Amino acid sequence: MDAQRRGLEDVVVGESVISLVGGTTGHLSYRGYDIAEIVAHLGYESTAHLLIRGEPPAEEPPRDFARALAERRALPAEAAAAIDALPTSTPPMDALRTGLSALGTGGFAYPPDEAQGLELIARAPTLLARFDRRRRGEEAIEPTGTGTHVESFLRMLTGRAPDPTRAWALESYFDLVADHGMNASTFALRVVLSTNSDLISGATAALGALKGPLHGGAPQKVLDMLDAVGSADRAEPWVRAALARKIRLMGFGHRAYKVEDPRAELLRGIAERVAAPERFALARRLEEVALDELRRARPDQRLYTNVEFYAGLVLEAVGLPRDLFPPVFAVARTAGWTAHALEQTSRNRLIRPDVEYVGPRDRHLPPTYPERAPAPGPRAA
Amino acid sequence: MDAQRRGLEDVVVGESVISLVGGTTGHLSYRGYDIAEIVAHLGYESTAHLLIRGEPPAEEPPRDFARALAERRALPAEAAAAIDALPTSTPPMDALRTGLSALGTGGFAYPPDEAQGLELIARAPTLLARFDRRRRGEEAIEPTGTGTHVESFLRMLTGRAPDPTRAWALESYFDLVADHGMNASTFALRVVLSTNSDLISGATAALGALKGPLHGGAPQKVLDMLDAVGSADRAEPWVRAALARKIRLMGFGHRAYKVEDPRAELLRGIAERVAAPERFALARRLEEVALDELRRARPDQRLYTNVEFYAGLVLEAVGLPRDLFPPVFAVARTAGWTAHALEQTSRNRLIRPDVEYVGPRDRHLPPTYPERAPAPGPRAA
Repeated sequence: MDAQRRGLEDVVVGESVISLVGGTTGHLSYRGYDIAEIVAHLGYESTAHLLIRGEPPAEEPPRDFARALAERRALPAEAAAAIDALPTSTPPMDALRTGLSALGTGGFAYPPDEAQGLELIARAPTLLARFDRRRRGEEAIEPTGTGTHVESFLRMLTGRAPDPTRAWALESYFDLVADHGMNASTFALRVVLSTNSDLISGATAALGALKGPLHGGAPQKVLDMLDAVGSADRAEPWVRAALARKIRLMGFGHRAYKVEDPRAELLRGIAERVAAPERFALARRLEEVALDELRRARPDQRLYTNVEFYAGLVLEAVGLPRDLFPPVFAVARTAGWTAHALEQTSRNRLIRPDVEYVGPRDRHLPPTYPERAPAPGPRAA
Repeated sequence: MDAQRRGLEDVVVGESVISLVGGTTGHLSYRGYDIAEIVAHLGYESTAHLLIRGEPPAEEPPRDFARALAERRALPAEAAAAIDALPTSTPPMDALRTGLSALGTGGFAYPPDEAQGLELIARAPTLLARFDRRRRGEEAIEPTGTGTHVESFLRMLTGRAPDPTRAWALESYFDLVADHGMNASTFALRVVLSTNSDLISGATAALGALKGPLHGGAPQKVLDMLDAVGSADRAEPWVRAALARKIRLMGFGHRAYKVEDPRAELLRGIAERVAAPERFALARRLEEVALDELRRARPDQRLYTNVEFYAGLVLEAVGLPRDLFPPVFAVARTAGWTAHALEQTSRNRLIRPDVEYVGPRDRHLPPTYPERAPAPGPRAA
């Protein structure tokens, strides 16, 4: 069986009206609105509104929707206790998975609804900020009902009112990664929901899929690469040496895109405004050299900068530690997960593919094996 | 798009050498050994050995393999604390999901291996027994290294040395449900692993899928139905009345089987040995009448007794409360999940199907929306 088939690459699993990923046109839209227009105009609350309800809100910011989110930020005691029980050395994705799971203690009955989704979206940042502060030896900061979703998250992480430029940059990132068609985490969530299981079970599965570097990726590794290069003038020899030694360059290529990922372009513009100038110049130069050299080395493949390349730069400029990048991606994606859970439920069919058995047949145990038999005993009364 | 396609029913997602489900022949085998032969001869440790290593052990019971499992039964403190943090009213599947997730705090690095799988298999029963005792107001019973896997589980649940007949019945059940081809929970696990995520993330996703009644089912509902019927002589009028009122009879039909599920037949035999005689007689009579009436009502469909019908009777006779049936199913399935995680990893390809976008296009936000722009602020240093 070929690899494509094992990856379901040629298989259409269903219809969706949520987001359109134009892999050959470099297009991404949510509910028909281009991602560039969304990031230029909509805060994360409005983007979540658009994804979940299918329409942008009547006002920006959407007062009632934002309030409904803000009111749900505080954690139930059991979820706080469950995430507090984990060792501070726990990788943040593992901690967030357990925290998300602990949100579900009976209140997320099937089928999912918008109120459940708001709870998931509102509480994911609180869980992550709580864990991050504890591992740094800092007291948890309880959420308030004030500020935007992203401002509240930054305040819970840092204990301070966020710098507006950083809040703008992080909110832009949240908008950009809030949904992306049928990716592996969304698909895992839909498989789980398709059994008539609940939203928290689906989100926990999705988080687990996002944890894998083939999906959630490794934007932190782009920064490790920038660190290794050091400065813009060293980019060219570094890239040539890396390619000669068959070292994989991070931040290029994506299964879904045959042209530049539109999110990469937008993140480049955000990084230019928010990152330290030398850091941005280094990244820009590394990108140019890498694309040149990659195209020279593999003229048959058109490799482009992917979403991870500048995402790392933006999240670094926001002040986040590198190992928080994947869980912050997950926190932003909860809006998309909610929209997909509602869509899956609205027209459900159990997702259960087939598998081709190619193993041995008709084998028999050796006669030396004893027969299992119940010892003589009373029947259950 | 038709429902079959949305369910991936005609889609082969890959090859497997683990278990063969013969839906038209009524066959189930693990690694080439018929399920009837397995349940007749192999304890759960040997069945797990067979599933994971591909071969039955050289001796039954397999001393080293069983000891490796027994040594891993105790919970790390954080997993015990996380599951202890949940309200006692938490549905057991939600509790087990959080407990499984809390097993992963950095020790389950990708790729999965047998030792990780043994940890998962060994600790799942400890988690569930701990939660069940706490909700009943009983102290947790720590595992010892003695007794079989299933005996240890029963001892942790009840505090007593298990009755041999009940232990035999539960171990038979564990053997019978330890794997079953590419079902929804196994598929969810493989989707998660396909991103290069870890075994605990995969098992947590699988548990979430198993929670859905379309997969993990509702063997407890079969018992509710038996309770409603009351006695064997009332089965016929009850079934007729139920069908007339379009009430769904529980325990019949399975997507994968067009003939009788071989597990149903084996569980019938186990139930006959372990259940109270009147209870078994009621179930038997209800089954006969239901199959007769279902075939009369829908002559085009061949409906057969499925695995759930007698599973409920067996688990009841073992003494388990009804809401533990789904998590006990999950605990037994951890052997299969481990085998599938290892198989997925051995020849991985990211599982990422496509979706057909059928939503609106080329929409634009009203001009009343303001431009999002960063407030003037310092760049990140």
